[in-house]
Amino acid sequence: MRIVVTNCNTTQEMTEEIVRGARAAAGPGTTVTGLTPAWGPESAEGWLDSYLSAAAVLDTLRTYDGPPYDAVVLAGFGEHGREGVRELVDVPVVDITEAAAHLACLLGRRYGVVTTLERSRGQIEDSLELAGVGRNCALVVGTGLGVLDLGDADRTERAFLAAAEKARDAGAEVLVLGCAGMTGLQRAVSDKLGLPVVDGVGAAVKLAEALVGLGLTTSRGGSFARPEPKRRVWHVT
Amino acid sequence: MRIVVTNCNTTQEMTEEIVRGARAAAGPGTTVTGLTPAWGPESAEGWLDSYLSAAAVLDTLRTYDGPPYDAVVLAGFGEHGREGVRELVDVPVVDITEAAAHLACLLGRRYGVVTTLERSRGQIEDSLELAGVGRNCALVVGTGLGVLDLGDADRTERAFLAAAEKARDAGAEVLVLGCAGMTGLQRAVSDKLGLPVVDGVGAAVKLAEALVGLGLTTSRGGSFARPEPKRRVWHVT
Amino acid sequence: MRIVVTNCNTTQEMTEEIVRGARAAAGPGTTVTGLTPAWGPESAEGWLDSYLSAAAVLDTLRTYDGPPYDAVVLAGFGEHGREGVRELVDVPVVDITEAAAHLACLLGRRYGVVTTLERSRGQIEDSLELAGVGRNCALVVGTGLGVLDLGDADRTERAFLAAAEKARDAGAEVLVLGCAGMTGLQRAVSDKLGLPVVDGVGAAVKLAEALVGLGLTTSRGGSFARPEPKRRVWHVT
Amino acid sequence: MRIVVTNCNTTQEMTEEIVRGARAAAGPGTTVTGLTPAWGPESAEGWLDSYLSAAAVLDTLRTYDGPPYDAVVLAGFGEHGREGVRELVDVPVVDITEAAAHLACLLGRRYGVVTTLERSRGQIEDSLELAGVGRNCALVVGTGLGVLDLGDADRTERAFLAAAEKARDAGAEVLVLGCAGMTGLQRAVSDKLGLPVVDGVGAAVKLAEALVGLGLTTSRGGSFARPEPKRRVWHVT
Amino acid sequence: MRIVVTNCNTTQEMTEEIVRGARAAAGPGTTVTGLTPAWGPESAEGWLDSYLSAAAVLDTLRTYDGPPYDAVVLAGFGEHGREGVRELVDVPVVDITEAAAHLACLLGRRYGVVTTLERSRGQIEDSLELAGVGRNCALVVGTGLGVLDLGDADRTERAFLAAAEKARDAGAEVLVLGCAGMTGLQRAVSDKLGLPVVDGVGAAVKLAEALVGLGLTTSRGGSFARPEPKRRVWHVT
Amino acid sequence: MRIVVTNCNTTQEMTEEIVRGARAAAGPGTTVTGLTPAWGPESAEGWLDSYLSAAAVLDTLRTYDGPPYDAVVLAGFGEHGREGVRELVDVPVVDITEAAAHLACLLGRRYGVVTTLERSRGQIEDSLELAGVGRNCALVVGTGLGVLDLGDADRTERAFLAAAEKARDAGAEVLVLGCAGMTGLQRAVSDKLGLPVVDGVGAAVKLAEALVGLGLTTSRGGSFARPEPKRRVWHVT
Repeated sequence: MRIVVTNCNTTQEMTEEIVRGARAAAGPGTTVTGLTPAWGPESAEGWLDSYLSAAAVLDTLRTYDGPPYDAVVLAGFGEHGREGVRELVDVPVVDITEAAAHLACLLGRRYGVVTTLERSRGQIEDSLELAGVGRNCALVVGTGLGVLDLGDADRTERAFLAAAEKARDAGAEVLVLGCAGMTGLQRAVSDKLGLPVVDGVGAAVKLAEALVGLGLTTSRGGSFARPEPKRRVWHVT
Repeated sequence: MRIVVTNCNTTQEMTEEIVRGARAAAGPGTTVTGLTPAWGPESAEGWLDSYLSAAAVLDTLRTYDGPPYDAVVLAGFGEHGREGVRELVDVPVVDITEAAAHLACLLGRRYGVVTTLERSRGQIEDSLELAGVGRNCALVVGTGLGVLDLGDADRTERAFLAAAEKARDAGAEVLVLGCAGMTGLQRAVSDKLGLPVVDGVGAAVKLAEALVGLGLTTSRGGSFARPEPKRRVWHVT
Repeated sequence: MRIVVTNCNTTQEMTEEIVRGARAAAGPGTTVTGLTPAWGPESAEGWLDSYLSAAAVLDTLRTYDGPPYDAVVLAGFGEHGREGVRELVDVPVVDITEAAAHLACLLGRRYGVVTTLERSRGQIEDSLELAGVGRNCALVVGTGLGVLDLGDADRTERAFLAAAEKARDAGAEVLVLGCAGMTGLQRAVSDKLGLPVVDGVGAAVKLAEALVGLGLTTSRGGSFARPEPKRRVWHVT
Repeated sequence: MRIVVTNCNTTQEMTEEIVRGARAAAGPGTTVTGLTPAWGPESAEGWLDSYLSAAAVLDTLRTYDGPPYDAVVLAGFGEHGREGVRELVDVPVVDITEAAAHLACLLGRRYGVVTTLERSRGQIEDSLELAGVGRNCALVVGTGLGVLDLGDADRTERAFLAAAEKARDAGAEVLVLGCAGMTGLQRAVSDKLGLPVVDGVGAAVKLAEALVGLGLTTSRGGSFARPEPKRRVWHVT
Repeated sequence: MRIVVTNCNTTQEMTEEIVRGARAAAGPGTTVTGLTPAWGPESAEGWLDSYLSAAAVLDTLRTYDGPPYDAVVLAGFGEHGREGVRELVDVPVVDITEAAAHLACLLGRRYGVVTTLERSRGQIEDSLELAGVGRNCALVVGTGLGVLDLGDADRTERAFLAAAEKARDAGAEVLVLGCAGMTGLQRAVSDKLGLPVVDGVGAAVKLAEALVGLGLTTSRGGSFARPEPKRRVWHVT
Repeated sequence: MRIVVTNCNTTQEMTEEIVRGARAAAGPGTTVTGLTPAWGPESAEGWLDSYLSAAAVLDTLRTYDGPPYDAVVLAGFGEHGREGVRELVDVPVVDITEAAAHLACLLGRRYGVVTTLERSRGQIEDSLELAGVGRNCALVVGTGLGVLDLGDADRTERAFLAAAEKARDAGAEVLVLGCAGMTGLQRAVSDKLGLPVVDGVGAAVKLAEALVGLGLTTSRGGSFARPEPKRRVWHVT
């Protein structure tokens, strides 16, 4: 099966990193295609970025003309757009935010999310709540690092471990990497913390494979019906 | 003071109607300026439209070069974007969804929302919940009419009254017009129902006036800090 | 329009201070009339005071024989009585507790309340919850000062700032003055905290003006129907 | 032990009926003393009545000069005042609303309340919520009968049974008599419904006996500290 | 009346201690019979123990052949099984977890639970939530002592007091002994804390007496209908 | 990888059916081993059965001496025990109740569960709530068929479709087969309803594969630490 993984920002290097994370998680028969929006923010940090990103991701998928695919993974942690993509495409759509939380719920009684900037906490809390998995989230906490600062692996790991302690104090028994750009970090921090750490990119790939494998896709019988036919202008020309 | 009222769609006639509603509510010293996005959906019905609209509204305000203004009213009922606008501008921002709910809470123990298509229910419920005013909402219910069908006033009124009965059965003591395009309808349906009916456009104008009058604006100390400086591409060129 | 502002206690000086705060917030066409109950507690601190105050405020409005008025503001932060007044009078009724919270919700993702004695926390939490605006309240916290100790402006300001830090640590991005007797303090503490601070008295005046301006008043179709006709004894004679 | 049972209204006959119900429930060593407020409403139906009643009940207990007592039962279903009485007296205080709910929770997974007028629903819902026992309440429903109409036992029983069916449809497995004036009805309607029916008066007496028997009384370490010493005027003279 | 008190573990000494606590609380006409399961864990600490205990307690009651009894008290704090026992027997069933919480709600606005090992927190939180009394629980906190370590009274008391301070900081105004093996400790720690402390064993006995006294028992009209007739094997032979 | 699927009852035919369902969902490299408890109920319907089943399932896994396995699937819809199994084994544990809900959340905004007897509703609601996925459940509804009546496929399908309409009216956009014995039914009813239908057995197998594939297992750092070493008697001998 083919899974399209869309980055939520325009930074090509980050798409590549996400695709590496996705491929590491994918099963033998799964092909991963990364997409980078042609417009949008270079990183998504805050609501303005998130709404800009949501439209750009929708546009990217709307105008996609590559080979057919079986599922979409949205690789923006806490970013908007998933419900719109569910309306747009006929295949299952999995957002890395909810994906990480779904798996985390299976691994402990309470989980915590460690993200980048503190300002992203609210978006993530809202996203988890609306996805229906907010109840067992003990804490969302920031590291103070920006999305594009995650390149320094040592600093990121130290910041992650420090923030993770706060989540643990709040009752978290499982941790979630709260940014697509952290993908790959899970093994190292899990060992140091002695707790399972879930990467949303890998989680979403596995959930997408699960849905495809079971022949399930988004319900058209309610919220996520196909978009109404109408005039839409996607760009000022 | 000047209040900028942004339509969430590209339909100029609807902006005009909204501006009429806003002016009818505005106090003597208030000037209302309507804005119509140059891109986006012709009406917002569903999540895809809503995310497209959010980016277009942000772009409209980002590139606005008219006279200075004191507050922004976002005239898309249940549509996304308010938190992003709060990051973007330095003046108070009031969304008609939350505005109607805030006033409705003052008028009865439970309120109901009558909107257009059933598919919009979920977005409105989510919007009210995140705005912090979902608790006393008894029901969000659709009329089955599309946004652009609201022109037929008689049909709209009949459909509204029928849906309002369902909200009343669910405990609503106050009703809310669940679409900016319904503005102006409140008096007639209120008389027939014997219940107060709140129009979000008018409510938002009054709340914007209140905030400006009290010298209050959005907090920068947390979620709604100014957008991070970075590279953002708003359109494919 | 005329707004009647009722103090919740018998201290005439406090009524005057509240009226000053209300007038500072009122629009040009608004007349503010202060009312002081002829009976009740000299300050409301705790449930016994609050219930005594509620009956006295109802009695004050029941026996009011001044010029007609267009709205009532209840100036007791966290005190009981608002639903009873909604039954009693035909004009809009706004309680300063809920008013402050409604505006605070428009200014940040979470708000906090700084009140007088710690023992008032519970009442305020309950009042916000029932008003339907408790969800986004991060913390209600006391300063340790009694209502009648607020005269010492410096001490009050220092105590407020100290308590506000706790609310901020709990996630508050906006603060609310949690006592009618604090009215006037908002500007100074807002400057020092770098956060918006909402005064309930001013907020309630603006919301009352908004409701009157929109021609809205309390729903009679449910909880707040007029009191049943019956024998009521308001005082032992 | 002596339990003081306070009626929430001024109707002496109702006090007598309540006392009969309380005595029927009381253990062998328990003496029940009924108190009727000298002022207040002749029946409590709605918030205005409830707040008037709360102050009158507090005044009644404040000025009580009979023999010492070991506990107070507040016999107004859904009426305000319990927290104020907890501040005032040094003995345990049990409100019949919460008492019925506490026992009902032990008898089934969800319970329902059948009360008098529909307008009382909101107060009861709020009272249960704040008492901490609202979660398992499936429905509060009115019979349409006023408090002083309950004298016609046949009509009351028929109305109760009809309303109880609605509660059962909503998931109630246990029912609660939602008015002190219904005391005595429980046996008959329980037999007809085939479900346990809890009378709040009896429940409160048993809970009061339980607390006294265990040597427990209201915590002074927080919300329910003794009233602050201050000037309070209880009546216009 | 006769109340059967079932220990949740196989430790006979603990049954005796529980029976002592139950008898100390019981009214003059009440006989207390202790039951110790013939199988199960020697103490219940964690979910595996709890589920093992639930089946063993059910088996103990299923095969009981002593004199008839009027109520069952389940003396495992936070342990599973109460709903199953409600299906099994025709008399009222009271679990000490819920019992303590019901009484604690009557004594203060928020209560806290001090238990043995930290790992028991989750089970207790879940048990309170499902019993419908979780809302007013401020904190469940462990002492770090195992169930079978409670024999050292001084150490237990010190550990209890230290943990109780955390609950108080979280808003608890009343405390609950979070283990049946702590029964008897309530007087001493209450004096030292200056707060009421509820022992679940005593609370459950009093609630059982209350239900029996009022002629109430578990509803058969829903969740707790009698077990379906079918083949069940209780032990490998 | 090897997944052990445990039936929650002693009916061997049902284990076989569940294993068939599990194998149909399993990926190419997955071996499914079914386990049938040697004791317990022949079907689990109600709490007594559920607690008996939980202990029997724990005992079955505790005494398992087959080839090593990589994950456990618990195939009792709404049955107790999952937390205990998480303590017991070192591999991931997935309960079909939570599994179905996790996947259903990805497919629509609200889901519904169609189960066997009405009496099972409460257990399922509780199980979903504690698993952290209750928020988006619109309704749990029974078909009126017992677990062992599901053999008549036509009747089961008719009953399922009738109950599914109730869930749809309550807002469900996705349905869940609420009994392990319904496995295999999903395709047929999905086609007829025009909605996705999730089978918990298949869902759990896919989630187990996902967790194993990602190298994740239950957290030992909190609730699900290994059972304390102690004396436990699993059966009367």
